[in-house]
Amino acid sequence: MGFCFPDAPKGESMGKTAETVAERQKIEQAVAAAGEAARRVGPMAGSITNTVTVNFVANAQLAVGGSAAMVYLPDEAEAIARAGGATYINVGTLLPVYAQTVPAVTKTLNALGRPWVLDPVAIGIGALRTELLAGMKPYKPAIIRGNASEIIALAGLWGLDGGAADSGVRGVDATDSVQAAKDAAVALARHTGGAVAVSGKTDLVTDGRVAARSHGGSPMMARVTGCGCSLGGVAAVYAAVAEPFAAALAATAAYNLAGRQAAEKAAGSGSFQMHFIDALYRLTGNAIAANPFDLEEV
Amino acid sequence: MGFCFPDAPKGESMGKTAETVAERQKIEQAVAAAGEAARRVGPMAGSITNTVTVNFVANAQLAVGGSAAMVYLPDEAEAIARAGGATYINVGTLLPVYAQTVPAVTKTLNALGRPWVLDPVAIGIGALRTELLAGMKPYKPAIIRGNASEIIALAGLWGLDGGAADSGVRGVDATDSVQAAKDAAVALARHTGGAVAVSGKTDLVTDGRVAARSHGGSPMMARVTGCGCSLGGVAAVYAAVAEPFAAALAATAAYNLAGRQAAEKAAGSGSFQMHFIDALYRLTGNAIAANPFDLEEV
Amino acid sequence: MGFCFPDAPKGESMGKTAETVAERQKIEQAVAAAGEAARRVGPMAGSITNTVTVNFVANAQLAVGGSAAMVYLPDEAEAIARAGGATYINVGTLLPVYAQTVPAVTKTLNALGRPWVLDPVAIGIGALRTELLAGMKPYKPAIIRGNASEIIALAGLWGLDGGAADSGVRGVDATDSVQAAKDAAVALARHTGGAVAVSGKTDLVTDGRVAARSHGGSPMMARVTGCGCSLGGVAAVYAAVAEPFAAALAATAAYNLAGRQAAEKAAGSGSFQMHFIDALYRLTGNAIAANPFDLEEV
Repeated sequence: MGFCFPDAPKGESMGKTAETVAERQKIEQAVAAAGEAARRVGPMAGSITNTVTVNFVANAQLAVGGSAAMVYLPDEAEAIARAGGATYINVGTLLPVYAQTVPAVTKTLNALGRPWVLDPVAIGIGALRTELLAGMKPYKPAIIRGNASEIIALAGLWGLDGGAADSGVRGVDATDSVQAAKDAAVALARHTGGAVAVSGKTDLVTDGRVAARSHGGSPMMARVTGCGCSLGGVAAVYAAVAEPFAAALAATAAYNLAGRQAAEKAAGSGSFQMHFIDALYRLTGNAIAANPFDLEEV
Repeated sequence: MGFCFPDAPKGESMGKTAETVAERQKIEQAVAAAGEAARRVGPMAGSITNTVTVNFVANAQLAVGGSAAMVYLPDEAEAIARAGGATYINVGTLLPVYAQTVPAVTKTLNALGRPWVLDPVAIGIGALRTELLAGMKPYKPAIIRGNASEIIALAGLWGLDGGAADSGVRGVDATDSVQAAKDAAVALARHTGGAVAVSGKTDLVTDGRVAARSHGGSPMMARVTGCGCSLGGVAAVYAAVAEPFAAALAATAAYNLAGRQAAEKAAGSGSFQMHFIDALYRLTGNAIAANPFDLEEV
Repeated sequence: MGFCFPDAPKGESMGKTAETVAERQKIEQAVAAAGEAARRVGPMAGSITNTVTVNFVANAQLAVGGSAAMVYLPDEAEAIARAGGATYINVGTLLPVYAQTVPAVTKTLNALGRPWVLDPVAIGIGALRTELLAGMKPYKPAIIRGNASEIIALAGLWGLDGGAADSGVRGVDATDSVQAAKDAAVALARHTGGAVAVSGKTDLVTDGRVAARSHGGSPMMARVTGCGCSLGGVAAVYAAVAEPFAAALAATAAYNLAGRQAAEKAAGSGSFQMHFIDALYRLTGNAIAANPFDLEEV
């Protein structure tokens, strides 16, 4: 979700790329299919998420065709996990009851083989946050979404390559670059067998085998709270109808496209958010799939 | 809150109707009076409501002329219940403290004879939700607002006609039609002595004696989270200055009218919500009363 | 945040004023510097705040150039307090965990000498609210922001001049005038050594030595929930880069200016909020400093 495109270090990216026309086409088709299926099926993706951006998460999920349900209590989370096509778990604003809810529901989701999306917001702040995130390792989220510093810190917490216990998380902000989080993202994806999406100027989405760098977005996305959280919620909607990598890339591409479209119309961060939701509401699967991305083997 | 109007099965509706010019005029006057009184009096309607749509509830209550106050703790709920003209209780996102707060405040409201509005969101999910909703039966909300599946499930939980323990609640969504919930709505209204509003394509509002089918709205209302919750909050504002049936119909009509107006201007669900609040802000009591509705005896 | 400007009782204001060109220039420069520094530095101002307006608080903080982080748990609040340039504490919607979080974090902030902003929303409702607010007295917030009734009640709770145990708080609304809260505001500022901002038709900001009356705003600000809360959050962003009086006046002036600009474009309270955030996003330090205010010794 960067400033404009293209801004990726092209030479390096091309040097490592194993992109073939067939591979790219396959990915584009999967992304388009995810976007279309969400509107056709209307999957319910429940959330355990923070109070700051919970409304934005729900409205973004509805805008792309899904259905939203937010809960706090352990047995309600279990019910929503079983009823939904996927679940979104964001640890942004922990409440005491999360100590019961989060371990129980992530265990259940793993046992059911049901996809879930993890947003390790502000990892490193407080004991419960660390305990909950550490405990998630065996329950393998299908998608992990975070900024660069959060991804590096999570890999560090889980003892994976590319991680660091002391990354540049500042409250809810990142101080590390997306490129710096690449190894951590790849290691996390290989551990979970799912996908990892790193949000930044140019977003990186990887399944541990290939990495897509998705272009677009707007710097205004950093001036509206919840662009990252709601991307995670939308990724959960897509994960209910698509494989993790396609779902993560579809959500990331949708955000980059909607962000670029909204920035053209916005007079400030207030109208940006409105135009952004409008843009999400109107996106087609094909438009999402056509949003520019680079591909490389990792 | 349906797709357009009129979409009610006219023949059936006319066949059962005992509508007279005088009855309709009386209802229209009461609806107009509710809308005007809310702006003139500025009644405070406190809420115990969910974290997802709490901001929308408050802004909708302010837009129609009321005042909002949201609380979680038992003694604060008591204070707000005593200070307010009516109280809105929505069980959308339960927290542990609701186990103390909700029974205490509903008992107090009943003892005070103060009107309160119940929104049995996602009834059936989790043990506490069931326990709280079951326990409300003797405390008789002046208005119950829900989608068709929630209304059927609540009547079932309270052992009333038309109810079913296993209705089509899917998270926060309904899978039953408004028509299918008619008997349950009537039974609930007869039990409480108040009114029941069932939201759907065409909304049904009943006091157990007559049923009004209110037309208008927009399918976009299902793409914005909180159109139902905030309708309940607005119904509480109106219930502070009007009888339950007039208050429930005024809120429902206001939503159908504002929804239709907003849909004409919206470029997506983001701008829809903004235009919707703007429309609520500008509605007059007479405009609300003029929103089309059918009337029948039940 | 009043109806228009100027609406202050000019004669009285001029009669008491000791305003000199130099004093006014110094204040204007400090206000402009606060506005500019927030955009240049991007200070993080964490919040413990209510669930109703938490999103608005965060977006307003981001719009003026700051960074936001909201937490509930005691150790997380400590971490955010240490990491941030200032902290915003709003007791609007108390949860049980606040009984631990608020005393601990206010004590820490005081020990660190770190500025914090207090918003004593709905003071007088419930035992915990009273206990928490009473306990804050020794920890001296750099800025206190409230409506007239809240300021009078807080001075009363802290046993200061101008206070009254039984002020006109009605839920979250004021029934007292800003002028009536002047003595309480001055007494609070003298106790804390910081600043107090009283929101109303014409806002009053004092450091206990001088009082500025800031003009502008719009009556529509009372029809959008969170204009007061988010003003407090913005004051915390400014308090991270400026002295309390300049920060409080900068936030108040920014709100009066943005409110006036938004009112010119708004078609209702929905679009008002969007235009308001857009206006905040575009404000320069100089524009904030140029917003009209009267100055007097107190």
